[in-house]
Amino acid sequence: MKAIAVEPGAGEPAIVERPRPEPAAGEALVRTLRVGVDGTDHEVIAGHHGEVPAGDDRLVLGHEAVGVVEDANGTDLEEGQYVVPTVRRRPEGTNEYFDRGEPDMAPEGKYVERGIVGAHGFMAEYFTSPAEYLVPIPEDLAPLGFLVEPISISEKAIEHAVASRSAFDWEPESAIVLGNGSLGLVTLAMFEEVLDIDRTYCLGRRDRPDPSIDVIEDLGATYVDSRETPVPEIPDEYEAVDLVYEATGYAKHAVETVDALAPNGVGVLLGVPEPWEFDIDGGKFHRELVLHNKALLGTVNSHRGHFESAVDTLAQLPERFTDDLVTGVYGLDEFHRAFTEDDDVIKTAVEFAAI
Amino acid sequence: MKAIAVEPGAGEPAIVERPRPEPAAGEALVRTLRVGVDGTDHEVIAGHHGEVPAGDDRLVLGHEAVGVVEDANGTDLEEGQYVVPTVRRRPEGTNEYFDRGEPDMAPEGKYVERGIVGAHGFMAEYFTSPAEYLVPIPEDLAPLGFLVEPISISEKAIEHAVASRSAFDWEPESAIVLGNGSLGLVTLAMFEEVLDIDRTYCLGRRDRPDPSIDVIEDLGATYVDSRETPVPEIPDEYEAVDLVYEATGYAKHAVETVDALAPNGVGVLLGVPEPWEFDIDGGKFHRELVLHNKALLGTVNSHRGHFESAVDTLAQLPERFTDDLVTGVYGLDEFHRAFTEDDDVIKTAVEFAAI
Repeated sequence: MKAIAVEPGAGEPAIVERPRPEPAAGEALVRTLRVGVDGTDHEVIAGHHGEVPAGDDRLVLGHEAVGVVEDANGTDLEEGQYVVPTVRRRPEGTNEYFDRGEPDMAPEGKYVERGIVGAHGFMAEYFTSPAEYLVPIPEDLAPLGFLVEPISISEKAIEHAVASRSAFDWEPESAIVLGNGSLGLVTLAMFEEVLDIDRTYCLGRRDRPDPSIDVIEDLGATYVDSRETPVPEIPDEYEAVDLVYEATGYAKHAVETVDALAPNGVGVLLGVPEPWEFDIDGGKFHRELVLHNKALLGTVNSHRGHFESAVDTLAQLPERFTDDLVTGVYGLDEFHRAFTEDDDVIKTAVEFAAI
Repeated sequence: MKAIAVEPGAGEPAIVERPRPEPAAGEALVRTLRVGVDGTDHEVIAGHHGEVPAGDDRLVLGHEAVGVVEDANGTDLEEGQYVVPTVRRRPEGTNEYFDRGEPDMAPEGKYVERGIVGAHGFMAEYFTSPAEYLVPIPEDLAPLGFLVEPISISEKAIEHAVASRSAFDWEPESAIVLGNGSLGLVTLAMFEEVLDIDRTYCLGRRDRPDPSIDVIEDLGATYVDSRETPVPEIPDEYEAVDLVYEATGYAKHAVETVDALAPNGVGVLLGVPEPWEFDIDGGKFHRELVLHNKALLGTVNSHRGHFESAVDTLAQLPERFTDDLVTGVYGLDEFHRAFTEDDDVIKTAVEFAAI
């Protein structure tokens, strides 16, 4: 079968021939339909993140997949069922995090990630997976099923943010997403359409006209240009916000988030920056957290429950939004177009089989 | 009646004569028994924190009080009932935070604090208070009732820390308190005796012999000397901990806390440092929060529910611990001894009337 693989840091993704996998006991065989591309894929391609499986020199890419069960192989799944696979998988040996269904809370070394760290991804005509890691999705949502994984990331982030504020009466009325990439825009839509937050903002550094600014404004949110309004100036220029969702990977945003928060607010961080030393007013940072009961959380990955919530969320996102978000779905004959990075591209996917 | 007041930043606490207050409708008159002294009092005395009530030039000190109802004045309280007053009070006008019983979540300007910011404290022979801010305490706990307010601070901090980890299965096995002052030691005792955390540590910078180190070790905790083991080195020297409680006010500890945390851990900050610029590895700080799902929270003050929990907690603290913690209770004739700061002093109180 055909797969899309890369030698991280040493080349472009290319089509390779791989044997079609055979499902082991407890596993199903899934025919891949579509696989989304995101910033993590680009980091893996550049060799900045991720790890090829032991004994291989290339990594099959792809962690945002939707497929259809080809061979249920005795599991509870049904053939023809549309499914989305989760990403983290159990490495060799026992593992308490996987045992209790919380692989997203496992520390480094206690997991592999399909398509990212130590395990091949889903950009292949077929993949196998333990049935427990395959989340059913209705047929009508299957064409956008590659959005379930990124939505699940924000399901977890929002769940943790809300939990952190659950010891008191917290009703967020305003929120900002830092970053106008596809994850940022999906999260902004969740804030607008699912969480019903009154006033939403999205920070980017793009000139108009720009398709992501159009998406932001179509959602009813306010575009904040970080070149004109750095994060610490958001309260003066707009308002101090109850919730900050950081999806830039820009390290200064972790500290600056606290300046942008209203009293009792929470900032949730998702970016993964490289080491970078810089000067901060650490006294102000500390004091502001304390005197205004603020919280700063990091979250990564997501578990099956978040994928299930994400399927519900996907069903609630307006068609107009998802139409504008997904700027291209490309067949294997032009798969490289899905990896193009320019300002007209928001979200792309590779199609392995028609739905 | 006699009261202990100070002109912040311009003198030492002194006994002043003040009129005995008359309870307004809904208020009770309380005869003061004992009032604790803490670091906030010293900051108020030095003029670094707090604010004299409008129209006065001195502030009556004291926010950690226990008293007995002298005149219930038609409220639900009973005369002879031992009570502990809460600290934050409603300023002029309506206030959603007080309306819902969460004055601890009010931002600056939306509260006054008795004995600290804009309202006289409890270091007087009598004080009045709305009955809703007087928390009953059993007679046998009354001699230590001045510990209820500091314990309530940690009740809130722990409640918020636990809430922040409630979206997953979190069972903290190790915790460190940064700071060996009286609040730090009380919190360490709560970790040991109430939360039943397996392995506890307390960071200070004292040479042996030292009474606070004795208290730490009597509790079964490990003393960590910050001069030998700075906070970021705690994981290598001891272990990465699930919970960090910062009670030093040392601004670098906010950022360093993240280095000391185990994956999925939470750091709760209580200190209130002054502005201070310094260099950090902001990329590492951000990345570590994200990749290991860590959380950093600030908390301040406490509400009535935390005072009620604190009464229960006080009942559970070993007598040996409280005996060692309280190094002096002084009558009005030698009240200045309660304000002495040296390494042999842990916790002191002024006694206004015998119990």
